[in-house]
Amino acid sequence: MKALVCTGDGVRLQERPEPRAAASEVVVDVDLAGICNTDLEIAKGYMGFTGTLGHEVLGRVTEGPDGGAVPEAWRGKRVVTEINCSCLACPTCLHGGRSHCPHRTVLGILNKDGGLADRVAVPTANLHVVPDGMPDDTAVFIEPLAAALHAYDDAPARPGERVCVIGDGKLGLLMAIGLAARAGDLGRAVLVGRHREKLELAERAGLAVVLEKDFDETGFDLVIEGTGHPSGLAKALAIVRPRGTVILKSTYAGAADVDLAPIVINELKIVGSRCGDFARAIEVLNAGKIDPAALISERHPLADAEHAFERAGADGVLKVLVAPER
Amino acid sequence: MKALVCTGDGVRLQERPEPRAAASEVVVDVDLAGICNTDLEIAKGYMGFTGTLGHEVLGRVTEGPDGGAVPEAWRGKRVVTEINCSCLACPTCLHGGRSHCPHRTVLGILNKDGGLADRVAVPTANLHVVPDGMPDDTAVFIEPLAAALHAYDDAPARPGERVCVIGDGKLGLLMAIGLAARAGDLGRAVLVGRHREKLELAERAGLAVVLEKDFDETGFDLVIEGTGHPSGLAKALAIVRPRGTVILKSTYAGAADVDLAPIVINELKIVGSRCGDFARAIEVLNAGKIDPAALISERHPLADAEHAFERAGADGVLKVLVAPER
Repeated sequence: MKALVCTGDGVRLQERPEPRAAASEVVVDVDLAGICNTDLEIAKGYMGFTGTLGHEVLGRVTEGPDGGAVPEAWRGKRVVTEINCSCLACPTCLHGGRSHCPHRTVLGILNKDGGLADRVAVPTANLHVVPDGMPDDTAVFIEPLAAALHAYDDAPARPGERVCVIGDGKLGLLMAIGLAARAGDLGRAVLVGRHREKLELAERAGLAVVLEKDFDETGFDLVIEGTGHPSGLAKALAIVRPRGTVILKSTYAGAADVDLAPIVINELKIVGSRCGDFARAIEVLNAGKIDPAALISERHPLADAEHAFERAGADGVLKVLVAPER
Repeated sequence: MKALVCTGDGVRLQERPEPRAAASEVVVDVDLAGICNTDLEIAKGYMGFTGTLGHEVLGRVTEGPDGGAVPEAWRGKRVVTEINCSCLACPTCLHGGRSHCPHRTVLGILNKDGGLADRVAVPTANLHVVPDGMPDDTAVFIEPLAAALHAYDDAPARPGERVCVIGDGKLGLLMAIGLAARAGDLGRAVLVGRHREKLELAERAGLAVVLEKDFDETGFDLVIEGTGHPSGLAKALAIVRPRGTVILKSTYAGAADVDLAPIVINELKIVGSRCGDFARAIEVLNAGKIDPAALISERHPLADAEHAFERAGADGVLKVLVAPER
């Protein structure tokens, strides 16, 4: 089969062996896979990953463990897949920390081939059935939306708080329109970015938006950093109020050259945030509260995945989708 | 009078005009002043401060506003002084955030001459009377101990949690022996440092200690970073458990070159911590629970303050005290 592989020396479309599902896994035929900023950072060396990229995956279950039949529960199901493949048996897993399992592999990120491929093997424990009637173009956003909504779990915006989201890329926009789906927080939330046309997407979702060059507010209670760049943290530190909270969502390769003194001087709280709750993301999308499909910039066949990957890193391009041809 | 001045081009003992107390201030004759790591960082450019250094000050009130008599309440009092000189009128001050007043000056750190001098003018709102019977060598630690104890305010160690303090300098040791004063947390707390003889001070206070080269534990619930160096944060990020908390106490000049990815991947909480509650520090010291005087390495007359400042930055040297000669 074809797969988009991070070789450690670049990102190449390669012929790879068909995946084989282990005892607790199934094989999913991929219908759509999204390219995420994390994939671009992995290509730069983040996580030191080599293997098939892709952790935003929509598909259908087509094969059971060891090449056998699909288990009854999954037969014919359209699914999305959580990315952390955890042991489910260690103390961390048993106490609710599955996404932090020290023995985990992570789809397309850590010791586990991902879904920018014709097929991918995933644990059934990771699967979520996509509701009938939800378009593929919406369902492929379940993974990134789950992560985006999770930004608010460790520092929920309280009524009256001033909230700022920095970054109008894929992640920033998803966090902003995710915030827009929360009643009551809207009036005092603002999205800051560099691209007028991207900001308009959030504006349409009901958020206040402002171009970075025109932005001079400070004193925010909660700042969500989603720029994908270390400079975003410096900006966040500059606009959050003393004793305020910065949610750090961006992941990037390499060290950040950031003056951390404001964290101490202003007694800030910096909270890292990674993967989120798929069931909640499905619920939000199924209720039609937001429509992330507006973030789709381009779609390419898997045969053109190298080009798709290049495009995903181009300025002004938001979500790029890759679809295997059947 | 004599004063140890950060000129922007070095630290020099200079003749300076006598301080004059403003309307809400008094003049304090300094008996003892401590040199802090923050002072060493200020000398390297941290905060861009120029003026008289010194924010750990013990003395006696000798003059009232505008050269007048000492107000009755402060007559003959031996005092220590909080360092944030706040407006007491803005919303931040009125809502309990005096140490974050946006209009504040800070003794020996921000637009306000400090106490490494014969005399210093300070707001009466900042003064705390030292209990009779408390030795000067103990009382001079009230300011740094208040800051050290504050490390536990935003992430209190819960029973059974594993706590690690990194750094066996002045701050790390004060935080460690401060922790030792808290009943119940002791058994599972460890201090990591590089100097056997410094660690022994904490060991005598009842803490478990370990040399950094022999240290290989991870999975701490709470890590207190007090090394005074950016590398301390990297260490803290490496040993805290997923979703654990790192308290950042160190301040230093310049940017930190730190890989921040663990914050996001492990969903850590980084909490900055600065100044603390003087009344609590006085209570802890007055109860005789801990004796920070063991941290005193050297004492010098104010006339030798330049040498004292050099010594404070020397390897193996802990607290250096400066005493004006009367």
